[in-house]
Amino acid sequence: MELMNKFNELITKQKAYMYVLQLSGWDSGTEAPRGAFKRRSEMLGVISGELFNLQTNQEFQDVVNGLFKVINELDDISKREIRKAKKNLDKIINIPKNEFVEYNKLIGLSQREWEDAKENNDYESFKGNLEQIFNFNKKFVKYYNKVDHPYDVMLDDYEEGMSMKEYDEFFNTLKKDLVPFVKEVLNSGKSLNDNFITDFYPRDKQKEFAEYLIDVMSFDKESGLMKESVHPFTWNTHSTDVRFTTRYLENFMFSSIFAAIHELGHATYEQQIDPKWDDTTLNGGTSMGIHESQSRFYENNIGRSIEFWEAHYPKLLEIFPEQLKEVSLDDFYRGVNKVEASFIRVEADELTYPMHIMVRYEIERMIMNNEVTIDELPKLWNDKMVEYLGIEPKDYAEGVLQDVHWSAGLIGYFPTYALGSAYSAQFYYTMIKEIDVEGLVKDNNIKVINDWLKEKIHKFGSSKTPKELLLEVTGEEFDSKYYIKYLKEKYGKLYL
Amino acid sequence: MELMNKFNELITKQKAYMYVLQLSGWDSGTEAPRGAFKRRSEMLGVISGELFNLQTNQEFQDVVNGLFKVINELDDISKREIRKAKKNLDKIINIPKNEFVEYNKLIGLSQREWEDAKENNDYESFKGNLEQIFNFNKKFVKYYNKVDHPYDVMLDDYEEGMSMKEYDEFFNTLKKDLVPFVKEVLNSGKSLNDNFITDFYPRDKQKEFAEYLIDVMSFDKESGLMKESVHPFTWNTHSTDVRFTTRYLENFMFSSIFAAIHELGHATYEQQIDPKWDDTTLNGGTSMGIHESQSRFYENNIGRSIEFWEAHYPKLLEIFPEQLKEVSLDDFYRGVNKVEASFIRVEADELTYPMHIMVRYEIERMIMNNEVTIDELPKLWNDKMVEYLGIEPKDYAEGVLQDVHWSAGLIGYFPTYALGSAYSAQFYYTMIKEIDVEGLVKDNNIKVINDWLKEKIHKFGSSKTPKELLLEVTGEEFDSKYYIKYLKEKYGKLYL
Repeated sequence: MELMNKFNELITKQKAYMYVLQLSGWDSGTEAPRGAFKRRSEMLGVISGELFNLQTNQEFQDVVNGLFKVINELDDISKREIRKAKKNLDKIINIPKNEFVEYNKLIGLSQREWEDAKENNDYESFKGNLEQIFNFNKKFVKYYNKVDHPYDVMLDDYEEGMSMKEYDEFFNTLKKDLVPFVKEVLNSGKSLNDNFITDFYPRDKQKEFAEYLIDVMSFDKESGLMKESVHPFTWNTHSTDVRFTTRYLENFMFSSIFAAIHELGHATYEQQIDPKWDDTTLNGGTSMGIHESQSRFYENNIGRSIEFWEAHYPKLLEIFPEQLKEVSLDDFYRGVNKVEASFIRVEADELTYPMHIMVRYEIERMIMNNEVTIDELPKLWNDKMVEYLGIEPKDYAEGVLQDVHWSAGLIGYFPTYALGSAYSAQFYYTMIKEIDVEGLVKDNNIKVINDWLKEKIHKFGSSKTPKELLLEVTGEEFDSKYYIKYLKEKYGKLYL
Repeated sequence: MELMNKFNELITKQKAYMYVLQLSGWDSGTEAPRGAFKRRSEMLGVISGELFNLQTNQEFQDVVNGLFKVINELDDISKREIRKAKKNLDKIINIPKNEFVEYNKLIGLSQREWEDAKENNDYESFKGNLEQIFNFNKKFVKYYNKVDHPYDVMLDDYEEGMSMKEYDEFFNTLKKDLVPFVKEVLNSGKSLNDNFITDFYPRDKQKEFAEYLIDVMSFDKESGLMKESVHPFTWNTHSTDVRFTTRYLENFMFSSIFAAIHELGHATYEQQIDPKWDDTTLNGGTSMGIHESQSRFYENNIGRSIEFWEAHYPKLLEIFPEQLKEVSLDDFYRGVNKVEASFIRVEADELTYPMHIMVRYEIERMIMNNEVTIDELPKLWNDKMVEYLGIEPKDYAEGVLQDVHWSAGLIGYFPTYALGSAYSAQFYYTMIKEIDVEGLVKDNNIKVINDWLKEKIHKFGSSKTPKELLLEVTGEEFDSKYYIKYLKEKYGKLYL
């Protein structure tokens, strides 16, 4: 089909622009000097503008709309590509270019201003940016001309097929079933031998263990690399260039270990996608939620299991004989699963983590429903922290200003983190029916687990929707009961 | 002037494309995984093609040609910009796009093939690429339609205003005045206490000293960074993003020290360019030769001086107390200035270095004059090594296949290395009339030297030609006698 060839040709060009922009993002996120940012944002502004032109010009519109008209004549893969393309096109096509440019400038500047505001505990100086970012997003959604609620449009951006209705149901279940359990655990009074957690672990030694973990997880170093950055992240442009970062806090070794395993989860997903999708719009993981299900599966279900540490604690002892000499395997296992009410989402344990997400989801929902003003956010945030975790932030850095997301325009993204954890539990209960996960982890044979995930999930890239994957892999629609069950089983055993 | 504004607008766009391509180059040169290269070359091919379109489309041609017609009405800066632009345009405008694309593919592939050929000592497998690369370049020069000799056009590409006539004169002087002196030094029979040179110096400790050197040289870390790579290089896109690499050979510490100082020379030049040029086509150092004069000045005139080590040997002793415990300052100074006939250009000492360049210049000259076939190159190379340095390479890796340049299409580049050294000597004899270089180096006050170079050379970026700079700074045209004098004084004292 000639029109489909034309589509692919235009997409290849767009992908080249995305590629260089992504490469710049990797550079910014890991090593670009501070002084570089001003001119960089000007130069990248030009390239982003060019990409926007390619994504919205008449030629591309004609091709996409032309194919959409005959979508029933296309094969399944092309159908999915054209539906995605049509949706993306409709979302941006009515945004005036000057507003798009202005918004991107705002986002570019807001990153730095958010950092400063956080450092100076100065909400006043930043709330104007926050207000503008939310307003731009509300406006952009209006251009989309869909009947859906604006927040629904944004939720669907990060997790195809999800809306407030479904998230409300999910979070209401958590509120009903999990919040009381979390309080029970927090009040269990169980104390751990956990001084070792904040002992001093030299950076280079932590790095040695992180490199060991790369091999444990069977990450392909020919097609990827690990680096260091302040905020760990995974980055990829195609299946043969997948990179991730970790960070080394010398007084909190868990940070590097679990950041590495978490990001290795994302990275394994990307590396195991069939390369045939690289040339299409169906490359990369299918959604934020599915991605997060993979990273959390590796981090929590595998990385925080007793079997994992039965296999790898000896290596850690070899690297840190002094720091860990009086720490038994059981102490260590309990340490990596320590539950406590804390302020910072990215440092939260597996059990309290969804509470942090609930706070953010409910606040975003209220903003998008015009039920709260930007001025009221700090108090609202603190009230919710008290309600779900019983603690109140002392300043904005451990409260409303802690996350980068809103300053980067990522609204509707947070709930995918909790959803991903819930997905991972549902996948997990299917997986253990088919392979001996505990035994494989204990035998340091994670490759077999990777292979299972590759066949069931990874290799499809974005060619299947999250809902399709869930149904095909587990035989059921999404159900949060597996998540609740998993958490209650694991933490009930540890704490109650 | 409206047409000039249009010119600037089009240039800004071109610069954005160059920026992202440069960023990709930095990534490739330092950390991109091997697996990434195939798809990367496809993606970058698209962006390069887009840039080529911008550089050759009718709109840009009209603007440049329009401005060139009225060049006498322009201010001096615009005059220089338009002359450069017109020259670049004329050079590429007649190259058929398919040939340009084909050549770039060839270059992309040749890098990897050269690496393999070098590793396998297999000239046969690579000579086809070499032949094609030279032929493409000969062809491209023909499209330029200039009366100049093809090699002259290429020499001017890397060093504005230089041609075979001038280089012949330069290298003939070296041959007459320097070759006999080099032989005298090599045959002096002077032996050094130099076992320490190949002692074991751990990577991390070398890195510590390299970081110390960054401060010694007053490099601005807010606007740049140091990293590690197999082949040290300096990279920049604008004055506030200047990066360089060094490498750590654990059995040859000098490599990291002098690579760092050399690249810091390039980097200091770039950092000290007036930022006002960033938005123009006159950003960056003015030529390869002037650039090399700065890196070699810092590396050799400063970094290999006794004063430098009077100031910094104590620090090195602090970092490597064991390895250097029996090495006196004088031993060390003689060690860093050790002269010997060797095969590898990048490892050659300051005195024999220009001999290596002479070999390459004479060979390129013969190829471009069709006086030698590609088949004959290995023998020709070896014969010239015997003639100038008295040693004969045993294999292609230490002979004709050692350098990356030809496989990357860099023909006419080599002679700028020797020219740069000669420039640096000429600048040096002017500098010492105005400031106390030796005293400043001894007092660890290199900032004053940086400032002198900034005022005289660096701040102008490319707004002055190499010839203009030389004349304005030293009051004379280029004269190789300073280079000969400098080398004879320094190495006569050390060896004769």
